[in-house]
Amino acid sequence: MSLDPKIAARLKRNSDGLVCAVAQQRGTGEVLMVAWMNDEALDLTLTTRKGTYFSRSRQKLWVKGETSGHIQHVHEVRLDCDGDTVLLIVEQQGAACHTGDKTCFDADVLLTD
Amino acid sequence: MSLDPKIAARLKRNSDGLVCAVAQQRGTGEVLMVAWMNDEALDLTLTTRKGTYFSRSRQKLWVKGETSGHIQHVHEVRLDCDGDTVLLIVEQQGAACHTGDKTCFDADVLLTD
Repeated sequence: MSLDPKIAARLKRNSDGLVCAVAQQRGTGEVLMVAWMNDEALDLTLTTRKGTYFSRSRQKLWVKGETSGHIQHVHEVRLDCDGDTVLLIVEQQGAACHTGDKTCFDADVLLTD
Repeated sequence: MSLDPKIAARLKRNSDGLVCAVAQQRGTGEVLMVAWMNDEALDLTLTTRKGTYFSRSRQKLWVKGETSGHIQHVHEVRLDCDGDTVLLIVEQQGAACHTGDKTCFDADVLLTD
């Protein structure tokens, strides 16, 4: 399998061949994490419905939760207007953040009112 | 003015000196858009509370809505666990997307259930 050519043609990848991916919790709307996808990661996300990314530090595919069990069941995927970012609507099992926090944005608040 | 050095020290910028920025609508939780910030854009966002980004195509600062009137009043800013992405909770005036759509993710649905 490889990514649907009609979708692949709409992607605007960065110089590393990646698009940005935002994962959002279904129902609550919490933004859980932001990561990156290559074409294979996006194809696997669409076909397996498990959130799958490309790890820039490890330079390999990464099925979210494959070691932690904190998988993401993917309900929706949307591509943005300029083709460089996808939004995933997911059911997150357990914590999304490797720190154990629910989201990657819980710990460091720069501004609030 | 420049970005608070304590915040600047926590940022993990990409090779272009930028961090990713996700703007989310206050209240509804809609993910409106994803863009990029350099240190100055983040500083201006925090101090003026107007969503301010760095345009990669134009290579300059860009106050969201400065021409369209579709400004973003910023209520919260959160930095993620690895310091390369900020989440903004905003009140978006008018459409967030340059196409006139409410969000940049309205038009192209790759998967739904």
